[in-house]
Amino acid sequence: MSEIRIDRLRERLSAEGVDALLVTHPSNVRYMSGFTAGADASLLISATQALLATDFRYYEQVKRQAPAYRLFQAPNGLAAAFGDLAREAGARRIAFESTHITYALYQDLAKVEGVELVPEKGWVEELRAVKSAEELALIRQAVAISDAVIAALPHILRPGMTEKELAWEVEAFMHARGAEDVAFPIIAASGPNGAMPHAVPSERRIVPGEPLTLDLGARVQGYCSDLTRTVCIGQPDDKFREVYGIVLKAQQAAEAGIKAGMLGKDADALARQVIVDAGYGEAFGHGLGHGVGLDVHEFPRAGARSEDRLAPGMVVTVEPGIYLPGWGGVRIEDLVVVTESGIEILSQATKDPVVVL
Amino acid sequence: MSEIRIDRLRERLSAEGVDALLVTHPSNVRYMSGFTAGADASLLISATQALLATDFRYYEQVKRQAPAYRLFQAPNGLAAAFGDLAREAGARRIAFESTHITYALYQDLAKVEGVELVPEKGWVEELRAVKSAEELALIRQAVAISDAVIAALPHILRPGMTEKELAWEVEAFMHARGAEDVAFPIIAASGPNGAMPHAVPSERRIVPGEPLTLDLGARVQGYCSDLTRTVCIGQPDDKFREVYGIVLKAQQAAEAGIKAGMLGKDADALARQVIVDAGYGEAFGHGLGHGVGLDVHEFPRAGARSEDRLAPGMVVTVEPGIYLPGWGGVRIEDLVVVTESGIEILSQATKDPVVVL
Repeated sequence: MSEIRIDRLRERLSAEGVDALLVTHPSNVRYMSGFTAGADASLLISATQALLATDFRYYEQVKRQAPAYRLFQAPNGLAAAFGDLAREAGARRIAFESTHITYALYQDLAKVEGVELVPEKGWVEELRAVKSAEELALIRQAVAISDAVIAALPHILRPGMTEKELAWEVEAFMHARGAEDVAFPIIAASGPNGAMPHAVPSERRIVPGEPLTLDLGARVQGYCSDLTRTVCIGQPDDKFREVYGIVLKAQQAAEAGIKAGMLGKDADALARQVIVDAGYGEAFGHGLGHGVGLDVHEFPRAGARSEDRLAPGMVVTVEPGIYLPGWGGVRIEDLVVVTESGIEILSQATKDPVVVL
Repeated sequence: MSEIRIDRLRERLSAEGVDALLVTHPSNVRYMSGFTAGADASLLISATQALLATDFRYYEQVKRQAPAYRLFQAPNGLAAAFGDLAREAGARRIAFESTHITYALYQDLAKVEGVELVPEKGWVEELRAVKSAEELALIRQAVAISDAVIAALPHILRPGMTEKELAWEVEAFMHARGAEDVAFPIIAASGPNGAMPHAVPSERRIVPGEPLTLDLGARVQGYCSDLTRTVCIGQPDDKFREVYGIVLKAQQAAEAGIKAGMLGKDADALARQVIVDAGYGEAFGHGLGHGVGLDVHEFPRAGARSEDRLAPGMVVTVEPGIYLPGWGGVRIEDLVVVTESGIEILSQATKDPVVVL
């Protein structure tokens, strides 16, 4: 697995005219090597070398998880080891991840003589965006776990339970179904709290007749799912039905129109136009979606200004929303994979918002 | 709360000769403002202004959580907003967190005309290191929850359960006791897995007579605990008793000797000397400890090369260990608070390693 990815990266190094890439973003380290403690490791990949630099705590783990790499012992961190690491790889012109390396670390690395540092953006992220069959299979497993939460909602939800209690029960449910972790902190936002797209679960009690936004994801062997449903215990009022109908129509427009070759901003516009036409344009303040994989937010972006181009095999969210301070919000989010001819919707959870207990 | 912290930071700005500090590290944002979604917000604090820049998703949340700050709407991110933000604050010479701002973001910020960027390290981290009575009370709550796990181990541990199963039961236990989250992914490493200081829980089954390292922490209103105990179901063998005795003696030496004014490396040496004298110096590959607060690893460090100076009110771990590939490991970790005269040990969990089921 790692070998194929290393070969593909080497093609990029050659095309870009650099000797090597220093990989420091944790998910990029994991993707390129299989080493799961990416935050405490760096890779230096050249045409002939694949080195993994880390400290004492992980020497054993490197051998188990990253056999395609040679361990480079860096007990005092990357900055202290970088000169020796570059020499070991015989690399002079070295690209680095400019959206991850900090200003201070760059200053330290730049002190190493005989090395020319070249800032890059997104080389590994672009490889990661297009999923292999194996990666897609893991994402499907994670999607099935989050879908199962929605199917079980009539059994999980109880009127009067707090948002925090619901979030924990959802987490425990996903764990029991095989999630190694949540993909991100679960959002359970009821009533007016739903006006905050990233609300943190509170002590507020969930009552029938109010909008309740649930945004949740499972992690399976590192890969994430991401699913949002807005529901109502019992019958929603007319306002809910109106807003819900617009958001659902916007999502359907996007899912019908997205195809490979499209820019992120054009995908976003498919849904945004529906919401603008309905008079709620100001209330849809975030982008339509984002890539999902080892990170729950990754390349590509599908926001109003995104120039990222969609390609077959990319896994992205489609999640329009309308947020009305004082009232609440509605967001409906699917995970989809871009195909040659359009998309396949991975999420299978019902979009009927009425939960009958 | 925020007002006092802002005033203390302003003293530093004045002493350093800058007009303002741009705060971007998530925990620093939270500490300075109370705003919990620090990863999606930035602060600009000058002598007269306290601005919080974030996007649409959080406008509601800012009003609730950060009343000492004025919301600055930054729908397209910090880089796009920075020029207006600096003008709004009337700040020309602006310090930034050089160990957090990426190289790429720095390049974008540096394009703003009329602003001089000054790299800084640790200004907010140094404020955070010395805990207030309110912060210490939250840390004590988190410590009590992790201590309770060890007290309950005879009821949680079952021979033949996997490391993963144990880690989940510990997480659920801490949740039931009031933890809002784990402070970090729980480590449950049995037998030879204990030789990896940061082992990820596996499908390995825990059996009597083997070393089992449990490293766990709870989070309460953002504040962390951090506790490690190495235990054995039933009677350990002579090797375990030997290694355990050395690590415990090393920890006791450190806890007896640490006092305010000491450098991190001198604290580290108190424990390291015991382990070196016992012939296991090579097997203690990490530092003695680190600060704990809103982050589970924060300023100060107490490693072999740390020049950080300990001061009253700092909360740090004391966690020597011995790791023997093929056999396993022993680590014993307390959380302590530095006082005028020495330390107070916060962790109350037993250090008797024998668990009788």
